[in-house]
Formats: sequence, C-alpha cells, structure tokens
Amino acid sequence: MKICKRLNIKYPIIQAGMAGGPTTPELVAAVSNAGALGTLGAGYMSPEDIRKVLSEIMTLTEKPFAVNLFLPQVYEKNEQQILSMQKQLNKYRQKLGLPEVSTVPDIQNHFEQQLNVMIEAGVKVLSFTFNEPSADLVEKLHDHGITVIATATTVKEAKNLELRGVDMIVAQGSEAGGHRGTFLNGEEEALIGTMALVPQIVDAVECPVIAAGGIMDGRGMMAALSLGASAVQLGTAFLTIKESGASEIHKSAILASKDTDTKVTSAFSGKSARGMKNEMMLSLENTKNLPPYPIQHMLTSDIRKEAARQGNKEFVSMWAGQASAMSKESTAKELINQLVSDCKNTLSSLSTDWK
Amino acid sequence: MKICKRLNIKYPIIQAGMAGGPTTPELVAAVSNAGALGTLGAGYMSPEDIRKVLSEIMTLTEKPFAVNLFLPQVYEKNEQQILSMQKQLNKYRQKLGLPEVSTVPDIQNHFEQQLNVMIEAGVKVLSFTFNEPSADLVEKLHDHGITVIATATTVKEAKNLELRGVDMIVAQGSEAGGHRGTFLNGEEEALIGTMALVPQIVDAVECPVIAAGGIMDGRGMMAALSLGASAVQLGTAFLTIKESGASEIHKSAILASKDTDTKVTSAFSGKSARGMKNEMMLSLENTKNLPPYPIQHMLTSDIRKEAARQGNKEFVSMWAGQASAMSKESTAKELINQLVSDCKNTLSSLSTDWK
Repeated sequence: MKICKRLNIKYPIIQAGMAGGPTTPELVAAVSNAGALGTLGAGYMSPEDIRKVLSEIMTLTEKPFAVNLFLPQVYEKNEQQILSMQKQLNKYRQKLGLPEVSTVPDIQNHFEQQLNVMIEAGVKVLSFTFNEPSADLVEKLHDHGITVIATATTVKEAKNLELRGVDMIVAQGSEAGGHRGTFLNGEEEALIGTMALVPQIVDAVECPVIAAGGIMDGRGMMAALSLGASAVQLGTAFLTIKESGASEIHKSAILASKDTDTKVTSAFSGKSARGMKNEMMLSLENTKNLPPYPIQHMLTSDIRKEAARQGNKEFVSMWAGQASAMSKESTAKELINQLVSDCKNTLSSLSTDWK
Repeated sequence: MKICKRLNIKYPIIQAGMAGGPTTPELVAAVSNAGALGTLGAGYMSPEDIRKVLSEIMTLTEKPFAVNLFLPQVYEKNEQQILSMQKQLNKYRQKLGLPEVSTVPDIQNHFEQQLNVMIEAGVKVLSFTFNEPSADLVEKLHDHGITVIATATTVKEAKNLELRGVDMIVAQGSEAGGHRGTFLNGEEEALIGTMALVPQIVDAVECPVIAAGGIMDGRGMMAALSLGASAVQLGTAFLTIKESGASEIHKSAILASKDTDTKVTSAFSGKSARGMKNEMMLSLENTKNLPPYPIQHMLTSDIRKEAARQGNKEFVSMWAGQASAMSKESTAKELINQLVSDCKNTLSSLSTDWK
C-alpha cells in the first residue's frame, strides 16, 4: 500500500479529525501507536490550545499523526438575523438555567495562526475540510514537508482539489457523521452514498482516495478497498472508544442508537452535518432564517456545552453516521486490531468460485 | 454460494425488476441466459399483459427468472386534491399538445389477478416491494414452489419481512434509482446508504441479503459481498443495455449524467423515487398537496408517455441511481461477463499484506 508508505503508517486506517472534543491527545496518540493515523480535530481550537495539545500528543507518541483544520469560508453577518436567533435560543437557555443572550458575537478567524502553530510544531499530515486550499497554500505546506489531505463530497469537488495539488482526497459519503465537507455543490445534491461516490471519485482523479461514511468494521473496510479506495477514514467508530473525549451522553446515545436515528441538519452550526435527532435539531430546523456557519455554531455553543454538562441529550449536537448502531466500547488499539483482523477474515471468506 | 443454488443461477447477480418498460422479455431472458437472474418488472402491468409477456420470456429462455410486483398499500382518495392536481398538470399537457383532463380516474388494483397469472405460468421467483407480504401469502407462494424476495430499506423493515417468512431480503440503499421500498419508516429517515445499511441488515436477519444501491461494476459487487451480502441487485446498470426497453431519452440522459444529477422525489408518482432532476420534478415538488401513490402515478401517466414519445426530457420520469454516470452501453451478456471478471480481478487485487 503506497498510502501507508507515504503516511508512514502500518494500516490504511485514519481516525477522522472530529472537532469539538472527541479527539483527545490520548485518542490521537493511541490510534497512531496502534499503527493507524490519529487526527486531532483542531477546527474550533485556539492557536494556543493547539500548541499545548500538539506537545501533549508528541509526548505520548513518536508516530505520525494528522491535524484537521476548517478552511475559511465567506459568509454574511446579518445582525437582525443573529438577534432574532438569539431570541429563539433563549427558550433553550431558560430551560437549562443559562443567562439570556441578546448580543451579536465577535467572530474571529484564527486560520493563519492555527496553520503556523502546526508548521512550527512539525506536524507531518494536515487534513482540510469545508473548502479547497489554494495551490499556494498546498505548495507552502509541501515546502514544509507536510502531506495535504482534503475532503470532497462530489466528483467536481475532488477534481478541483486535485487541481490545487492535494496529495490525497477523502471521499465523504452521505452516511458519514458530523459536518459535510461540501463546498462547490448544493448540500442536498452532494449527499451521495459511499458505495456510489468512491468509485466515481477514484475514476476521476489520479491521487489516492480515502473512503469515509458508514465504515464501522472490517467488512466496511474491505468494501471500501474493493471500491478502489486506498484507505478508510472512520469517525463514529472512534467516538465510543475509551480514549475519546466525546461526552458521556453522546457516547451512550450512539451505543443505544439504531439505523434510522440520524439526520442531516444545519440547525446546530449553520452548516450541514449528520447527527442524532433530538428536540433542538428538529425544532430549529424549521427556522426560515438560520444564520450561516460559523455564526450559528457560536450562537448555540453555550447551550450545547451546558446541556452536555447536565446530561441533557435534547439540546446538544451528537454527531453520528448512519451505521452508529454498530459502535462498540473498546480501546483504540482493540478497535484497530479488530478492524485489521476482520478485514483479513472478510477477504479470506470472499470467493468468486460461483456454482 | 447457497443463494445461487437456491435460485438455480450461476452468478449472484439479479437484474432489478424495473416497472414501466425497461424489463422487456429480451432483457429478462438475456440476463437469465447469461447466468444471472432476470426480473420482469410487472408492477404496472395488467394480468393479461403479464400472461403474454411471461410466455414470450419462456420462449426465449429455459433458465429461471423472477417477477417483481408491488404489494397493495392503503391510500386516501381525495377528489378535491385530484382535481387541483389535474389543473396543475394541464400546464404540462398544454405544452405537449395533449388534451386537458379534469376528471378523477378510476383506480383498480389487479394484485390478486397478477399473482394468479404468475402462479399459473409457473414462475419460480417472486420479488415484492412497497410493503410486506402477509405470512399467509408467503406460505401460499411456498406451496407453489415459489421463492419469495422482498425489499427493505431499514433494519426494522428487514426484521418484519423475516417474520413474514420471506426467503431473501433486498437491502435497498439510498443510492438506488427508482422507487423506494420503504413501508414502515419515514421516507427521509429510511434513506440509508448501502455501505451502512447492508451490514446492519445482515446482522439483524438470518436469511440471505441482496445488496442494492450504487452498484454498477465488479468493484461495487465485491464491496457488497464484503459487507456480507449474498448477492447484488442492479437496476440502473441494466437500463442502458441494448435489450432494455427504457426510452431513448432515458438511456441518453443516464449515459450523459454525472454524480449529482439525481434526486429523491414524490412528484411523479406520489411515492419517493430517485431519478434525474428535470423541470417537471422540480416544479411539482413544491406542491403542498400531492396525491398519494398510485393516484399521482396515474395522473401524470399521459404526460410522461407523451414526453418520452416526443423526446422531451423535462416532462418524463427518468429513474436513475447515484452512480448512473458509470452506466455503459452493451448487451446484457457483456455486462454480466464484465461484472464477473471485474469482480474476480478486484478480489485478486485486494491485499491485507500491509507494510
């Protein structure tokens, strides 16, 4: 597997860079130590926090790991829209005993500083989502010896990423939990199932393709490799892992979930993402005038944090993919060993000796 | 492969029973003669037509083939709603030079007669969609030596089908073209990608599972078998085949399609189905008060037929799955041979000899 050589890992398995807490230094390091590629989901982190966490990871592992960042997007800041949403959100704040908020938040973008911290720290793999990096940015990262991975949800997006010079492309199928990486197509038309998306992207680009969406075990891993993927990226499967920093309500909701429990929504962040259905998602979804990402993400932040603290699963985002019901509790090492042995068993059980 | 033995076929490949024209006697027979299982999509056919076509198929092949039928559903007939839809549809009729219609159609259900024709003709495999057969119906079919296949889009539906005693279950992923088989869950929550759906259904039932949705070539076939499916069912891949009776505009639209061209809609038939986006789909979708299946199907029927005849692709339903861009023109035999050889090549190229 060329991709393993390029990433300097043993198994073609990547733990997705889930932002917002799950990717603790312990998780990232345990995944990398087990022979796969751990990823720090640093999208929401301040440059100072990233610096601190990177040094923690580096004390826990000498193996390579990746960092995932959100590429900046253009968005419109409409004060009227924000104030009207704050008013609506105050209903939830009241239920949770939080103070009302009637202000327009200050939104800062730390992308350049986040990037510099990573370059200084000597991170070897950088993965992007939400947009395409410029060719100049990719070249700059290459000059620092950094392998660049970016996320596509359609063939058009994948072709654009390749034109920018990225080294590998994550093909994110509609089954995937968390935020959609869609940046060129409409959010609805870009909900393409992994089975259909992966071979179409593999045929459209020259670089290695990493399959994501609905992969939870060795059967899914072997299926993705059959479709022409060079590696797999799993998010949901790592959420319930002992080293994961996902909240207890998030972990227990996923472990108790069934196949029809998730939905793609913009309610929590202003950007499409797949998560477990709950009261806040279903009621906010009907809002006509939802502020865009990252505004809505900031506006709902205090509510989601407090609800998680109180163990209230109706007012928190619980990202999960469509195969979340297959989640298990184990250590990162146990999950990776299981993936590899299931994958080998699946391969040896396959046969084309029909009739 | 036990499923091949049970169905008396050489390869674990089923051509989906696409209703409305594509499954000509020539296509069904050519598929079965090539070692896979052809299926007549008889859902919309009169008992007399089924009788005639079955005898044509039987003169073209001695191999087993299947017939697909729609199980009856309960629906409400609202005259006001129908007349209002007729008025809306008259816009399209005018554009196509068709006479206006302002009447409420008579809706007849031929299910029992369709069934009897098939039993009399000695059909060996019956596949159902749109609902679950009763245990009594399954027992009756078994008494006639008929293997019963039914369609599920969620784990709950699959478990229910198994309780009714069906022999095999088609797990229809969200990528699939044509009508959704959903009957117990909400239509939106039942849009589960093949990669996520197949292993969850395989784990939930004892009977063999047939994977459908996004499978177009040997890579997809090997992926589905990796996920634990015992066979694959392909619809879209057979639409552009020489023996297919799909209209020329349908065939050429699929051959020219890209990954983001399809959408799940109820506009044409009153029931969720995936097809190529066009003017009629996108404008009818915004109708608040859409008559249910089969009423809407009947109301739009004259328009869809005339548009196909005129080669107007804006006013016709063109069912297609999310991997339609991978369609090719060939004969049924060539497609099946290609599937089998690609599948073998895919298997031999897979390796778990990492690093």
